[in-house]
Formats: sequence, C-alpha cells, structure tokens
Amino acid sequence: MRADRRCGKEEPSVEIRTVAVIGSGVLGAQIAFQSAFKGCTVIAYDINDQALAAARERFDGLVQTYRNEVPDAKDGAAQATLARLTLTSDLARAVADADLVIEAVPETVALKRETYERLNELAPSRAIFATNSSTLLPSDLKDFTGRPDRFLALHFANRVWRFNTAEVMGTEDTDPAVYRQVVEFARAIGMVPIELHKEKAGYVLNSLLVPFLNAALELAAGGYADPADVDTTWRIATGAPLGPFQIYDIIGMNTPYNIMVNGSPEDQKLAAWLKENYIDQGKLGVASGEGFYKYS
Amino acid sequence: MRADRRCGKEEPSVEIRTVAVIGSGVLGAQIAFQSAFKGCTVIAYDINDQALAAARERFDGLVQTYRNEVPDAKDGAAQATLARLTLTSDLARAVADADLVIEAVPETVALKRETYERLNELAPSRAIFATNSSTLLPSDLKDFTGRPDRFLALHFANRVWRFNTAEVMGTEDTDPAVYRQVVEFARAIGMVPIELHKEKAGYVLNSLLVPFLNAALELAAGGYADPADVDTTWRIATGAPLGPFQIYDIIGMNTPYNIMVNGSPEDQKLAAWLKENYIDQGKLGVASGEGFYKYS
Repeated sequence: MRADRRCGKEEPSVEIRTVAVIGSGVLGAQIAFQSAFKGCTVIAYDINDQALAAARERFDGLVQTYRNEVPDAKDGAAQATLARLTLTSDLARAVADADLVIEAVPETVALKRETYERLNELAPSRAIFATNSSTLLPSDLKDFTGRPDRFLALHFANRVWRFNTAEVMGTEDTDPAVYRQVVEFARAIGMVPIELHKEKAGYVLNSLLVPFLNAALELAAGGYADPADVDTTWRIATGAPLGPFQIYDIIGMNTPYNIMVNGSPEDQKLAAWLKENYIDQGKLGVASGEGFYKYS
Repeated sequence: MRADRRCGKEEPSVEIRTVAVIGSGVLGAQIAFQSAFKGCTVIAYDINDQALAAARERFDGLVQTYRNEVPDAKDGAAQATLARLTLTSDLARAVADADLVIEAVPETVALKRETYERLNELAPSRAIFATNSSTLLPSDLKDFTGRPDRFLALHFANRVWRFNTAEVMGTEDTDPAVYRQVVEFARAIGMVPIELHKEKAGYVLNSLLVPFLNAALELAAGGYADPADVDTTWRIATGAPLGPFQIYDIIGMNTPYNIMVNGSPEDQKLAAWLKENYIDQGKLGVASGEGFYKYS
C-alpha cells in the first residue's frame, strides 16, 4: 500500500482512519469503496446476508469501474481496495472502532431515528456521525444522535469517483472543529468539499438543479419549445456538454416526478405532464432506453 | 465570392437576399456582419454620422475577430465581407430593396413604434420585419408594423459567430410561411434556429438562465455557500465549463440587476445584495476586471 493511499495521510490534521458506512446500497457502496480506495479502513454495514451479497457484487463491479475510469486505479489499486473493506450485518461490530460513521440508509425519518439511536449506543463517543441524506436536513435528525455537536451532513453524488463533490452541512450545534475534520476527510478521500455555511434543503447542487430543470420542463410542457431545441440553446449559450433534458434522462424521470408531485400547483401540473407523456409510456430516461431521447 | 457564401444559396427555398439591419450597436453590427459574411447583401442603418462611424469601427473589429475565431473566415473571407456591407443613415435607402428588415434599436416601445411606423412606409410590402428585442414580445410591437402577418422576433445572442442561436418567435398573426422563411434564413447565415411555438418572455435561453442564475444568487446572498463553491459544484455535477457566477461575470452585473430590481420582493432583495456587494464597489464582472472573480 502506498503511503499516500492511507486514509488522511495527505492531510496530517485528519484523525479519521476507520470509517463505518451504514447502508450499502448504490451510493453507500460507492462511499465505502472510495474511502477504502483512498486508504481508509472501512466497515460497510447492511441489514442481512442478502443485502451484504448485493453489496459484495457492487464492490466487485466498482473494482472494474475504477480500473476503467479512475486514472490512479491501475496496477491493482482497485483490487487492493477490497482488502480494506469489511462487510457485516452486525452493527456493533461495524462501528466498534469507527472514527466516522456515514449513514446512508433509506430516506425515512423513522428508520434514520432508529438507526441513530442504536449507533449512539454502539459507537465510541469520539465517533463523528454524518448523514448522506438528500431530502432531510441534519437538524431533522440531530436529536436522535445523542451527539449533535459531532453530527452533520456529508452529501455525496452518485458515481462518486467522477462526480466527486461532497457537500458538508452542519447544524447550529455542530462543533466547528468537527466540521473542519469532515471537510478534510472529504478532501483526503478525493472529494471536492463544498462547504455550506448554514442548512439549506437541496444543498448547493439541487438548489441549482431543481429550478433549472423545472424551467426547462415548463418550456416543453407549456408547448413553447421542443426539448431538443431547449437543450441545443443551453449547450450553445453556455458551452455545457448537456442540456436540461439530457440531464433529466440521466437522472431518470422518477426522482423529479416525486419532487414535483408534492410541490406547488404549477409543479404538480408539470408532474402530470411528465407522467402522461413519459413515465406512463415507460420513457424513464437512459436506464429504460428512452426518455426525452432514445438510447441504444 | 464563393457560391456557398451567397445569402440563402445553401437553402434554395429561401428568398431572402437583401437584409437591412436597423440599429448598428454591438449586436446589430454583429447581425449585419454575420449576414454579410454568409453572402447576404446587407444595409446597416444607424441614426447619424457618429453612430455610423462607431459601426464602421465595429465592422473593422469584427473582421479581425472573425479571422481569429471563425474557422471558415480565412483567406480574406472576413475582409471580403465588408464589400457586402453598406452603412447609411438614410432609412429609406436602407430598406428600399430589403427582403428582410432586422430591427435592433434600443429597447423602448416608443422608439420601436416610431421605427416600425416609418419602416412600414419605406420598405417594400414583401419585406419581412423581425425584431431582435430581448425584453419585448413581438405582440407588443406587431400593431406598429402595418404587416403583422410578416412580423416576428428573431433573437440573436451576443457574439453571434460563437453563440450562434437564433430564437424565432412569432405572434398569433405571423404567417407560418414567413416563420419558415425566417427559420431557413437563420440557418443560411450559420445560426442554429431555435423555434418557439408560442410567445414566451425571455425566449428559451433567458427562461432557463434567469431562474438558474437567481438560484445561485440566493445561495450566495443568503450566506449558504460561497460563489466559487457553487460554481465548482455545478461544473463537477454537470460537466459544464462555467458555473453560474462565472456566467454572471461574463454577462456583467447590470443586466441581471436591472431585471431583478423590477421583480418580486425576493428578487429585489437579491438585487440589493448585488448592488451593495458588487455594483457599488465597481465589481461589474469581466469587463471591469473584477466581479465574483478577479480578472487580469
């Protein structure tokens, strides 16, 4: 193992060596793998053997993906990552020696509450807790953690090795020293830390993306312009590789639909249009082979 | 002159050969130059000798710019463009033989009204009138034209040779055949036509850009995140070369300020923040050497 692969080795101030990732779904597995790839000792937790088997498959897939897509994952570095990754369905074992616990369980308050209450009993008192929640604010969860001063949000984006932002957002109770440690941890595992100075639903990325995508949808759903022309306009005007409807297709229709269907009356109209013209016709985006565009 | 430089030669259906551009300011001069570069006979009008002298300087600058930045402007093609460009302060002469009149005069209804009423008397009845207005809808102007069936908006973006969208937007009165002709004209002069099927303030581009830039400004003005972090997030997440604050700096602060200061109470707050922290300090963007970023 090269020295610069040690978790936090590049940042001497970081004392985070052992990371527990709670929930080994798509993004949880990526967070665990990326942390291990950068030298952390990582314990990935999920609820049962079936979930662990799925996580193991995800890790194997990530070895291949990193080999293909990550410049410094050659020479066996991707494969070697697995040696720093442990999978367990024993929560006590998962967090027994954790410096940092990253929670990536499904987005319901009840489940997160139960998880944090158990974590607080099982993890060492020094451990920092971080939620990867996209839809909840850390202040919605802090009271369940038993350690609000050592709790914040650390929000990753899907395909962490490529879309390597890590949005860091504390509550009013978060110890500034803990916040800094997590910022440095994010940097040490190859992320670009995006610091939020106060809580904001949607963090930075979705605060930009949602109104942008909504505006595009209004143009199409209102019959003003065709999706392809909207995308062309954006690409030419801003030099961006992707227009908003290409981004919809990558994200898939379901997430924007679920956000909009619970939104304002205008949002609900857009949701209905999206459902009728795309979702109900199986046009869900790249993953289904067709969305606003066709994919082969 | 190469055959493919003839205005409309590439599109046999286009009957637009002679173009009058009314108003030879920054964008008017670019529209005139681009049309002439692509083979049209162009008469550029402005109100007096001083304005014409400024336009002539703009054309000379564009010769240099096209040589440097436009791939097919080598071998004297940029210089040769000047031979197809006539400047005049005689409106009757400007439009006497025009197939298409593109209006690019300052954005006041009174001035545009006066201009269209004179144009309608002076231009041949076959001439199509197109407004380049950013802030007015063509239906705000159509009654002044005397020919609402032959009137629409054709909206260019600054630096037309590079940001080569041409948004085409008619009113309910616009003859569909005229609309098609203008779409094909736009294509013939090297633009990518963006077809709007009905009127929309802001066309496509500003309908996307304004909510996107506002959302970014809310993050900074609200103290949630720093402009550079917001930009980084957007660049990483979408692969775009520029984040929203880099775009602000290119546009300059004044236009967004003027839009927001007349907007909703939230917009007015953002405008006040922009004024206090940037405009009042002379930080207007790239053009002033500093905006959200410093430029050398």
